[in-house]
Amino acid sequence: MSAVTMDLNADLGEGFGAWRLGDDEAMLEVVTSANVACGFHAGDPAGLLRTCRAAAARGVRIGAQVGYRDLAGFGRRFIDVSHEDLVADVVYQIGALRALAHAAGSAVAYVKPHGALYNTIIRHAEQADAVATAVHFVDPALPVLGLAGSEFFDAARALGLRTVPEAFADRAYQPDGTLVSRREQGAVLHDVDEIAERVAAMTGHGRVTAIDGSTIPITAESVCVHGDSPGAVRIATAVRDRLIADGLQLRAFV
Amino acid sequence: MSAVTMDLNADLGEGFGAWRLGDDEAMLEVVTSANVACGFHAGDPAGLLRTCRAAAARGVRIGAQVGYRDLAGFGRRFIDVSHEDLVADVVYQIGALRALAHAAGSAVAYVKPHGALYNTIIRHAEQADAVATAVHFVDPALPVLGLAGSEFFDAARALGLRTVPEAFADRAYQPDGTLVSRREQGAVLHDVDEIAERVAAMTGHGRVTAIDGSTIPITAESVCVHGDSPGAVRIATAVRDRLIADGLQLRAFV
Amino acid sequence: MSAVTMDLNADLGEGFGAWRLGDDEAMLEVVTSANVACGFHAGDPAGLLRTCRAAAARGVRIGAQVGYRDLAGFGRRFIDVSHEDLVADVVYQIGALRALAHAAGSAVAYVKPHGALYNTIIRHAEQADAVATAVHFVDPALPVLGLAGSEFFDAARALGLRTVPEAFADRAYQPDGTLVSRREQGAVLHDVDEIAERVAAMTGHGRVTAIDGSTIPITAESVCVHGDSPGAVRIATAVRDRLIADGLQLRAFV
Amino acid sequence: MSAVTMDLNADLGEGFGAWRLGDDEAMLEVVTSANVACGFHAGDPAGLLRTCRAAAARGVRIGAQVGYRDLAGFGRRFIDVSHEDLVADVVYQIGALRALAHAAGSAVAYVKPHGALYNTIIRHAEQADAVATAVHFVDPALPVLGLAGSEFFDAARALGLRTVPEAFADRAYQPDGTLVSRREQGAVLHDVDEIAERVAAMTGHGRVTAIDGSTIPITAESVCVHGDSPGAVRIATAVRDRLIADGLQLRAFV
Repeated sequence: MSAVTMDLNADLGEGFGAWRLGDDEAMLEVVTSANVACGFHAGDPAGLLRTCRAAAARGVRIGAQVGYRDLAGFGRRFIDVSHEDLVADVVYQIGALRALAHAAGSAVAYVKPHGALYNTIIRHAEQADAVATAVHFVDPALPVLGLAGSEFFDAARALGLRTVPEAFADRAYQPDGTLVSRREQGAVLHDVDEIAERVAAMTGHGRVTAIDGSTIPITAESVCVHGDSPGAVRIATAVRDRLIADGLQLRAFV
Repeated sequence: MSAVTMDLNADLGEGFGAWRLGDDEAMLEVVTSANVACGFHAGDPAGLLRTCRAAAARGVRIGAQVGYRDLAGFGRRFIDVSHEDLVADVVYQIGALRALAHAAGSAVAYVKPHGALYNTIIRHAEQADAVATAVHFVDPALPVLGLAGSEFFDAARALGLRTVPEAFADRAYQPDGTLVSRREQGAVLHDVDEIAERVAAMTGHGRVTAIDGSTIPITAESVCVHGDSPGAVRIATAVRDRLIADGLQLRAFV
Repeated sequence: MSAVTMDLNADLGEGFGAWRLGDDEAMLEVVTSANVACGFHAGDPAGLLRTCRAAAARGVRIGAQVGYRDLAGFGRRFIDVSHEDLVADVVYQIGALRALAHAAGSAVAYVKPHGALYNTIIRHAEQADAVATAVHFVDPALPVLGLAGSEFFDAARALGLRTVPEAFADRAYQPDGTLVSRREQGAVLHDVDEIAERVAAMTGHGRVTAIDGSTIPITAESVCVHGDSPGAVRIATAVRDRLIADGLQLRAFV
Repeated sequence: MSAVTMDLNADLGEGFGAWRLGDDEAMLEVVTSANVACGFHAGDPAGLLRTCRAAAARGVRIGAQVGYRDLAGFGRRFIDVSHEDLVADVVYQIGALRALAHAAGSAVAYVKPHGALYNTIIRHAEQADAVATAVHFVDPALPVLGLAGSEFFDAARALGLRTVPEAFADRAYQPDGTLVSRREQGAVLHDVDEIAERVAAMTGHGRVTAIDGSTIPITAESVCVHGDSPGAVRIATAVRDRLIADGLQLRAFV
């Protein structure tokens, strides 16, 4: 019997100029896919190039993490961007990171929206279509990483893009399968054992306990761990170890 | 005898958000190469995409006009950027525009520095090398447009890049062949006939009259006309007409 | 019988760096109050200082026009800013413009929100309270200019701020007294005579025809004309002339 | 005999949005004056307001730390800003922070330039005059903190501003009394005992050992400790303890 594989992704390159966020070097030792910021919500070019080089050096795959143009808000605030503007904003970001990844001897292998954009296009059909259209403009062969059942995935599939559903290791879920907003109590989990256990349930049995206690189905080809929370490396390591212990082989999705 | 060709380039896409600068549509009817801003000194993605589409629709070639990260200063102020930062800034900008040009059904065919960066790398060897290195990282086959005899061209040639020297239609020259700074009196010419005459001398006889009255040699495979000055379209048209009258065929450099 | 007075306000200082929007000099000859941008949606400091000086030289009163931090979107896109962030953003903007106005020998005499922020706080109680709180922090004696019946005015009055209702000369109204969104057909009026007629009805009879044809009541101590639309100066002049012809004395509200 | 006093200043509020730099809370327990960023090189309004409130709560005086408009470079890169632009940029920054400090129940009590601007105006007469002119525009009673013997101090005194010379606890000096550039080896000292010893020599004997081993005179009414370097709090505490042990009373300059 062939081993089942699982991808482990995290947000990296989230500093800007003199500012750092999270321990990119340590996270790169754990994950198989790095969602690298593209300069709109985080990431100055020199820092992004360093992150791309560090990822390339460890054989970690690079994805473009596109976001709203909002450094002050770290891309965590909804912006009512028009379809035309958002298409161009996303094309611009992916293109910029592609050149940096290429300069680092690697390439952008997928696209994942960030923060408020990620959450918005779960239900906002117009912005969802804009992001999918932008990815398609850049390269129809680029997969997108996101939430199963989202408008984003519908729009992406309508354009023929491959959609890769992910599960969140340390985020609370609502009964409808979306994430609990960071503005709310209990949105982010911190207990390492609980997180590892949830990941095991999600990847092994395709289900997770929502914030109201109900059990909901979840499909995942990748597990997202956060790189910017306190104890991020420890949590990511625990998730990885648990996945391996459960017999999964950690490998970037194809 | 085969016809001699000449390229005519202008800076386009220099608006930002609600702001416009120059008449891109009209200039695209005149020039053969469009130096399109990349978002650091000017150009929001949606505006840049519109400019790329307009250029593509008219068969005008697209170049990436890279600049300092300085929207407030329109890239016209020297910034003491480190080599590491400047390499990444330029890679980022070219990459972003490449994706937009691709989305417009075209491609970035060359790179031209803008404003203070253009002037700085005539003599600033470290920043000159940074820009050349960045172009080489993105694609060693990309030609660079600039000033003959500059540090930038030395650095570019050292990396094997093709260098395309240009002449400025409406800018005053110093005796050493560099441009008179915009901060000085007489830096920009406004008389259409005088400009057309100078261009004829530069392209036909390889010489121009410097601001001190001396005659200096000049080599040009392309003539730069400005898109943002008052009467820009009229000047560009006069230059084009004069070049054609002198028997040159207007065509993008190869 | 004493003459009735009316204020005429327009948005000014809406350029940024090399970019200009509207004809500030000409508008300053017409209006009595200048809503000067504060750098977040438009306005670099040097340009704002020039605008403040030009206003001061003509005895035109200066107001701080505060907006979302969104140069690329010109402050015309809703941003889901938290109360804490918005309070500080608005305090920052008013303070910055106060110093510039002071350097110009004048002062900030009132506050008016811009674009999407203006429209949002008609109904968004939390952001409305944030803007009012910020004005109150800076100076409880600063009046706010806005829409009668808005959440913003409720929040401002709850803090003891003076509220000054305005009417829009060239914008279409919805039956509930709010403005028709710029994204919709017919949102902005262009016919000079129609605009002057509407202003006469609004200031003389306290009513205006909404986009659905119904007549709605409107209260105004100030009339807003736009500085950035084509023909802005001609429209503003027509409005001014009509107000004077109707026996009103143009004077900044107190 | 009356006790001699000494001020201890540090740069604070140097985060931006999601990003933090240094431990502001801890530094505020040690210093008597807080140089608070103003948003151009660091500092989003909400973070600056929090810093102002924390300073006010501890009775630490607030100064406006003005810098170049360069978030990506943290204000550490020289920008060739014109006199007109720099005057307005500095007025804008001081005004913005004044409003935030006022909202925090405090006030801006002095101005100190940051990073590359600080270093530039030691010798760059035009930019030095621009900063002094800006301070004078805002309030001629505002003292400026800087380097004795600088062009900045000459320009400030010419306008009647009070100049307050400072010594740097952890920075190497050149024989001419200027700082060794951060780009050079040995620019920043890290040994706590060495730093405390230098500060004792500077404040007690008015002299310091330059990087070439020579002894140079130094005048200081304030000692600057850094808030952003590793071990910043430990260094600042050691400096404070040494000053107190030497019989100085720590108190903000008047």
